[in-house]
Amino acid sequence: MGGSDINHLVSLLSRLPGLGPRSARRVTLHLLKKRDEAIIPLIEAFHAILNNVKSCVECGNLDNSDICTLCMDRKRDITTLCVVEDVVDLWALERAHIFQGHYHVLGGVLSALDGIGPDQLNIEKLKTRVQKNSDIKEIILALPTTMDGQATTYYLQEFLSPFPLVISHLAHGVPVGGELDYMDDNTLAAALKARRPII
Amino acid sequence: MGGSDINHLVSLLSRLPGLGPRSARRVTLHLLKKRDEAIIPLIEAFHAILNNVKSCVECGNLDNSDICTLCMDRKRDITTLCVVEDVVDLWALERAHIFQGHYHVLGGVLSALDGIGPDQLNIEKLKTRVQKNSDIKEIILALPTTMDGQATTYYLQEFLSPFPLVISHLAHGVPVGGELDYMDDNTLAAALKARRPII
Repeated sequence: MGGSDINHLVSLLSRLPGLGPRSARRVTLHLLKKRDEAIIPLIEAFHAILNNVKSCVECGNLDNSDICTLCMDRKRDITTLCVVEDVVDLWALERAHIFQGHYHVLGGVLSALDGIGPDQLNIEKLKTRVQKNSDIKEIILALPTTMDGQATTYYLQEFLSPFPLVISHLAHGVPVGGELDYMDDNTLAAALKARRPII
Repeated sequence: MGGSDINHLVSLLSRLPGLGPRSARRVTLHLLKKRDEAIIPLIEAFHAILNNVKSCVECGNLDNSDICTLCMDRKRDITTLCVVEDVVDLWALERAHIFQGHYHVLGGVLSALDGIGPDQLNIEKLKTRVQKNSDIKEIILALPTTMDGQATTYYLQEFLSPFPLVISHLAHGVPVGGELDYMDDNTLAAALKARRPII
């Protein structure tokens, strides 16, 4: 193959999710051919990400400010909090334009296999938010329907039971084993609309 | 979705070959989560590519020197020249360890639709190489079996006919419409072994 710098880039790219060695080689060749048009904008975009993007201190969303635009948006419904596993799930719900409340990003789900317990997730902050904001009336646990996701839903349901809240989960329109980010807007909308209270 | 810097990166990544909006979002989230481990090495690799990688003045391969390591390698067979469409095809043949000669990378194939004529390809240099190196006895036209690839094979066959050379193409073991980079080593080896002279 090409020089060591090319091999190094192929190796770095092939570690990205969804890219194998073959697609990493294709991307590398594309970048080699369009240096100024493709590589330089990417370098600039990476620097912008490193310099500007922060985790929202309130909800865990990623944005250009300490408190994200969704948390700052006064038009959003403060009575409903939607708990998601990851930022891609928040993005999926926002793309579908079906939810006007606030979010809480856990940053993962509980996993005995991967050694992820409640302390590794953004769970304590969820408690603080519920304690501080008496406006919150409902928490939607929009977690994946995988084993770990369901265990996390159950854990949070117990964890939040002392508070006078409606706790709901997405309706069973979400395919078992699926992830929010892979679903079409209609399925997401149907699941959100038909959500059912746990308690 | 997230801040404008995140959207910008997703948009840049989704333009890369093989990545759509969804995989671009997955890659972006991965990079956001592993900033120092993933973004900084990529920035460094991009700078290395920009600073070090050159197109070989001899064959058109991409490498860290003006003349690539394959052209510099005296152990390689100087009597055979393998003409390929692109560097990924050269990489595919090198990975298969089935060819010990030299290469010539065209940088594309003739395409009336895309307005790519002989002047846009590395063809004049091919003539110069053949004229200067009387050691070259055979030229293998290892171009794709697409319409444009076949037209290019035919064009080069005519173009090289004044020279006292054996001109061959890969055996019909290569699936019609396929590209070298997508083939397994055995198919490549069989096709190379059973190559047949055109003239």
